[in-house]
Amino acid sequence: MRLTILGCHSATPRVNAFPTSQYLEINDRHFIIDCGEGTQRQMRKYKVGYAKINHIFISHLHGDHFYGLVGLLSTFGILNREKELHVYGPKGIKEATEMLLNISQSHAKYELIFHELSSSKSELIFEDEKVSVHTIPLKHRVYTNGFLFKEKSKPKKLHIQNINNYPEIDKADYLNIKAGKDIVLESGEIIPNEELTIASEKPKSFAYCSDTSFLPSIIPIIKDADLLYHEATFLSDKEDLAKKTLHSTALQAATIAKEANVKQLILGHYSGRYKNIELFQEEAKTIFNETLLSEPGKVIELV
Amino acid sequence: MRLTILGCHSATPRVNAFPTSQYLEINDRHFIIDCGEGTQRQMRKYKVGYAKINHIFISHLHGDHFYGLVGLLSTFGILNREKELHVYGPKGIKEATEMLLNISQSHAKYELIFHELSSSKSELIFEDEKVSVHTIPLKHRVYTNGFLFKEKSKPKKLHIQNINNYPEIDKADYLNIKAGKDIVLESGEIIPNEELTIASEKPKSFAYCSDTSFLPSIIPIIKDADLLYHEATFLSDKEDLAKKTLHSTALQAATIAKEANVKQLILGHYSGRYKNIELFQEEAKTIFNETLLSEPGKVIELV
Repeated sequence: MRLTILGCHSATPRVNAFPTSQYLEINDRHFIIDCGEGTQRQMRKYKVGYAKINHIFISHLHGDHFYGLVGLLSTFGILNREKELHVYGPKGIKEATEMLLNISQSHAKYELIFHELSSSKSELIFEDEKVSVHTIPLKHRVYTNGFLFKEKSKPKKLHIQNINNYPEIDKADYLNIKAGKDIVLESGEIIPNEELTIASEKPKSFAYCSDTSFLPSIIPIIKDADLLYHEATFLSDKEDLAKKTLHSTALQAATIAKEANVKQLILGHYSGRYKNIELFQEEAKTIFNETLLSEPGKVIELV
Repeated sequence: MRLTILGCHSATPRVNAFPTSQYLEINDRHFIIDCGEGTQRQMRKYKVGYAKINHIFISHLHGDHFYGLVGLLSTFGILNREKELHVYGPKGIKEATEMLLNISQSHAKYELIFHELSSSKSELIFEDEKVSVHTIPLKHRVYTNGFLFKEKSKPKKLHIQNINNYPEIDKADYLNIKAGKDIVLESGEIIPNEELTIASEKPKSFAYCSDTSFLPSIIPIIKDADLLYHEATFLSDKEDLAKKTLHSTALQAATIAKEANVKQLILGHYSGRYKNIELFQEEAKTIFNETLLSEPGKVIELV
């Protein structure tokens, strides 16, 4: 699993700031999460192949998470994309996006499939043989979801050297072994599956939570995640402002990370008022040591 | 008059390319012309004060000229703008923009006034005591206008030294002199206005033409302009493609400049297929020597 930060700042434009967008590679799936203005250029800058993207997840319809979507979709059309594209986001995203594409007469060859979200409960919104995606209901000034991305268990690999110690085991048994079954020899001896297989890596998970006020109700959903991205728009000195604007402080993000027992926390969505973003890391580390900072172009690999 | 290029490339995103937007300072008026994705950031980069902008002109609703508008308007709201803002652009721009602002719940204190255009003839769309703006109907794949920005004549200044040679001339006459009238002395002698005034600078004009196919019908409208921005998406090697996509070549832009007897031509909207944009200048100069190239951050001053 590999996460690339494309943009990680809040809405006010600055020269070296880019609104929220992330690129997630997970079990051979390639996802864009949020799509602020300029995302298509950031994808070029950090060499994210447009053609790999088949699914885009939009947390909420504030401009700094959404206004770059139509430009990206329009560019896919200009580049003659033919593969269908799935967009997941709040109810209303379809009408707004289609209207903009129509007004620009951006005719595309590819099918654009919207999955509009309106539930206030966590739900499964994507699943295939390799990955699942659940929503994480958040609390912000508009309807907002985070997303929990989970790898599925990888099939066990055969331990051929050990298997060869038992000439009775036939290739016809291999599927059963991969599926985790023990083998019973003609003698009645039971060969435990663990002896015949190599344990596969534990499936990884990534929880994306932006934008939101401090919201302990997400803890059970994101429990034990390998990586949590949690917004930290403010430091604790502006806790009142965080509460008022339904954002979080670095300390609140760290509290969620600690309570949810995640392995690593990565912060972002910093307000433009803070010149030194390292203060966010310092504040979070006072209660959760494994804290990273988002920066444009930063890559986090989980292996 | 001062023109700052904020972006000058065509739609396909590249790391160091920015879609079309220009900032025009003309007789103390401050205009944004076109607003491709990322314009608000380019404005920050080139220190264009947001608060100065009261009028935005959009040529057409293709994404590379328009998808940055809503982000800029939204930012004006975040920054608590209170002054009204005027947006001029093709019919449909109001509904699309308002829908996006509404879906993001971008409540702003300022009044946003749309002036929707649909005429196929040149029309006066803005006028005050210092500046006028006329449309330049263009030919593209969607309804498109260029814009002709003209300074108004500045009032003549009194040549006090010469006036003092005629003690009969009273201060009460000054308004008439500024208005260009000759003065008749009691002796019947006529003092020509030229002797009593200092000639003011000739008013400047700027014609903005993007996107368009080769369109000689614009020549009478832009005749004698001090500066012409004309799109040049292709070189002559792709004249067929220019014709098909309703764009122009550098040579065609230069032909318009020459026929319209403008003083300077500035090219832009280069297709991503050309790595060396100097070829555009070389091609245009074969028939029109006073040719410049748009580049992000470039400033052209006309004094």
